Amino acid sequence: MLKERLRCEKLKKKLTTAKEASMYIKDGMLVGTSGFTAAGYPKAVPLALAERSKNGEDLEISIITGASVGDELDGALSRAKIIKKRYPYQTNKDSRDCINDGTMEYCDMHLSHTSQWIKYNFFGDIDIALVEAVAITEEGGIIPSTSVGNTNVLIEKAKKVIVEINTSQPLELEGIHDIYTTENPPNRKPIPIVKANDIIGTNFIPCDIEKIVAIVETDISDKTREVSEIDGVSKKISNNLISFLENEVKGLNKRLLPLQSGVGSVANAVLGGLVKSNFENITLYSEVLQDSVLDLIDSGKVDFASATAITISPKRLKDFYENIEKYKEKIILRPQEISNNPEVIRRLGVISLNTAMEVDIYGNVNSTNVLGSGMINGIGGSGDYTRNAYLSIFTTVSIAKNGDISSIVPMVSHHDHTEHDVNVIVTEQGVADLRGLCPRDRAKVIIENCAHPDYKEKLLDYYTKALKGGKYKHTPHNLSKALSWHERYIKTGSMK
Amino acid sequence: MLKERLRCEKLKKKLTTAKEASMYIKDGMLVGTSGFTAAGYPKAVPLALAERSKNGEDLEISIITGASVGDELDGALSRAKIIKKRYPYQTNKDSRDCINDGTMEYCDMHLSHTSQWIKYNFFGDIDIALVEAVAITEEGGIIPSTSVGNTNVLIEKAKKVIVEINTSQPLELEGIHDIYTTENPPNRKPIPIVKANDIIGTNFIPCDIEKIVAIVETDISDKTREVSEIDGVSKKISNNLISFLENEVKGLNKRLLPLQSGVGSVANAVLGGLVKSNFENITLYSEVLQDSVLDLIDSGKVDFASATAITISPKRLKDFYENIEKYKEKIILRPQEISNNPEVIRRLGVISLNTAMEVDIYGNVNSTNVLGSGMINGIGGSGDYTRNAYLSIFTTVSIAKNGDISSIVPMVSHHDHTEHDVNVIVTEQGVADLRGLCPRDRAKVIIENCAHPDYKEKLLDYYTKALKGGKYKHTPHNLSKALSWHERYIKTGSMK
Repeated sequence: MLKERLRCEKLKKKLTTAKEASMYIKDGMLVGTSGFTAAGYPKAVPLALAERSKNGEDLEISIITGASVGDELDGALSRAKIIKKRYPYQTNKDSRDCINDGTMEYCDMHLSHTSQWIKYNFFGDIDIALVEAVAITEEGGIIPSTSVGNTNVLIEKAKKVIVEINTSQPLELEGIHDIYTTENPPNRKPIPIVKANDIIGTNFIPCDIEKIVAIVETDISDKTREVSEIDGVSKKISNNLISFLENEVKGLNKRLLPLQSGVGSVANAVLGGLVKSNFENITLYSEVLQDSVLDLIDSGKVDFASATAITISPKRLKDFYENIEKYKEKIILRPQEISNNPEVIRRLGVISLNTAMEVDIYGNVNSTNVLGSGMINGIGGSGDYTRNAYLSIFTTVSIAKNGDISSIVPMVSHHDHTEHDVNVIVTEQGVADLRGLCPRDRAKVIIENCAHPDYKEKLLDYYTKALKGGKYKHTPHNLSKALSWHERYIKTGSMK
Repeated sequence: MLKERLRCEKLKKKLTTAKEASMYIKDGMLVGTSGFTAAGYPKAVPLALAERSKNGEDLEISIITGASVGDELDGALSRAKIIKKRYPYQTNKDSRDCINDGTMEYCDMHLSHTSQWIKYNFFGDIDIALVEAVAITEEGGIIPSTSVGNTNVLIEKAKKVIVEINTSQPLELEGIHDIYTTENPPNRKPIPIVKANDIIGTNFIPCDIEKIVAIVETDISDKTREVSEIDGVSKKISNNLISFLENEVKGLNKRLLPLQSGVGSVANAVLGGLVKSNFENITLYSEVLQDSVLDLIDSGKVDFASATAITISPKRLKDFYENIEKYKEKIILRPQEISNNPEVIRRLGVISLNTAMEVDIYGNVNSTNVLGSGMINGIGGSGDYTRNAYLSIFTTVSIAKNGDISSIVPMVSHHDHTEHDVNVIVTEQGVADLRGLCPRDRAKVIIENCAHPDYKEKLLDYYTKALKGGKYKHTPHNLSKALSWHERYIKTGSMK
């Protein structure tokens, strides 16, 4: 098996155990890993690292990934208290607990910034790049697996490279990747993508074989998540969104500009709704492809999908692997520097679909910090797409926690996307098209179209009193009440 | 005089008075004008419009400009209560009053978004483009004056065009412009700029001569502002910034990546400080060039400056005009779609220098709304540059109003640039380099390095109590106190 995967003769002597490979990682190091969502991240070496810590070794490292990764990396190392600092995104329960109890430093970043920062040396030297591959070519080129993320940049910049060849990842993934790296300014050139399916690079990551210090064989599979069944509320959101889009492209021969879709069950459901829409020849220029994209390909709706990762739920994975040749024709995985690049997103005119945690009456969006302080996941690529989209759309349910939380509030408790970047808000209640509206008009349309009936009057009351009572009427606020809904929730468990 | 400026025979019959030309503008219309800062905006026709209103005519229009414009447009029309809605930026006292008393709708936008929106038809049809020119070519091409802004896009999309040929603007401006327009997706191509001084277009704006309904001759000059003398505080900010930059480019042969500088007296002072720095071969890729750029060109420090407008103070204007041939060699004025384009800004690796109104301890920046509600100017191009910069820097004085306001606060009362986009904060007190820091560490360095001594202890007290008392310690906040400094200022006139 490994013969067809480790094709470089010179590198065969580097084959070793996960434990031995892990010894290259020392206390205080900065380690960059592959992985973007629970796809294509290293598994065996992180587990060996956690083991070392359990055996009493003092070990603390900082980690840069593509985005979130699976439990073998973020979970195991968080529980072992090995992670001092974490960039640029995570979704792991144990990491989150460490971040919010103040024992892990977390720097939440736009995912398109990370690759640049690595190359600018803003993080300092990368000691080790620890990456998953499906194979290594004759010349030492790395064939990534289910994600590219920052792997190409980490391999380029790290002092040493450790490769996990993962035999659970089908070798047929070879050829799905398109690796292209930009130079640093002042030598940076235009990225030559003008269509979502343009191929501009190589299908492997070039790597100086002298840097590869260890190669580990493993067969631990990606720990992807099940996606929830589509519930009634998600369906309403999806229907509202699709009606809006259908109206928007009236006369455009049912052709949408390329779509980006955020990650998660609701996002998956929303995108999945397109299977029953009238749209044809859909393309995606996105960061992550979930189950719904396979459905859209199967139904003939999607012509092409570009991303940096593919994260298929366990239930659907077998089917994906069995039909991989079919799907491969319609999918490209790119470095996140390219998938999330403002240059390409703006040029292609991407329609961005992201999930908001809360939205305020003026159109500001909180995607990250609950009650202003507690990190959930991170901003991820939502800012890269939202700011540069042809049309930026946020979806959210209008209420949460059985109605004790209104997702529409007077003022969001943390700002990730400001009023300038948010074009459209969709809830199960309806759609607020904010383009070209002044803040006062935005408040009216958001309250009227998107808020839950239980909170409409309260929101209108806040707005009306702020408008009447305040000196400045551009963005009417009463600062002593602006965050009072969150304060009330902290005190009573309900915003009501 | 007009012979060498109006060179198109067919158009000579369109010459008319400002009053007659103004009659094409009717109640309810959407009018797009030239102008970016008090440079290159139409003057005679807006004054005639204001006159019509004074004479009792019911007249209300919506206006899209490049950015701010001079008093003959925003001031006169605001006083006459003609402006129903205003996009995308302004700096006029009378406009601001209307915006904040709720009688003018104002949609504050990223300046790179405006041109796209015009072409996407998001504003609806543009009835009239009203533009200033120094000349019209034989074929009807428009030669802009001291700014390009959105003029090219407005001329392309508007149903009718009115041109003011302004004889106070030197004809020598011809050749300073580089006009390039992008297509809409899916046909948009890479913008072929790889250096700040690349010339990629024409020196005139193409215009269908059938659309030109009126041409007005005028000699009203740009009402640019005096820039304040450089005071001690500005000098300290400038020195702190330059020390930081010198340290940053150590070993890079004193070469900086292209600079962008915000507009205003402080920004002018900060940039002017570079005259005495060790940097050589400076280039600018910016939106507006002020007096300091002429100083930098004179001193041989600046090789090249690209922008969309040049706004020279009255004191310096004569010198600029007399030496225009010299300056023209080193200056290009581009459409704001190009000067502010994320694609080009990120490719060139621009170092952005913008002014913050207030900054919070986690690095969020308020650039627009005083006390969360009152619009000052707008976000302008600061977001276009900040998000896409190689290095994004904000400068601010640490206190205002004789110390009654701290520019560093627990939570900004309005968010324009979030923590993800702000790399460095510079005050007269010092420099906070926030790159790669988690929120807790950002708070420490901002308070320690940037806050005024009068407020340091109070900020630290807020942070420490929020950290201890709150459930979530990622971004420690006490929501009942987060905006209390602003509340106190509203009640007592001081944050102390």
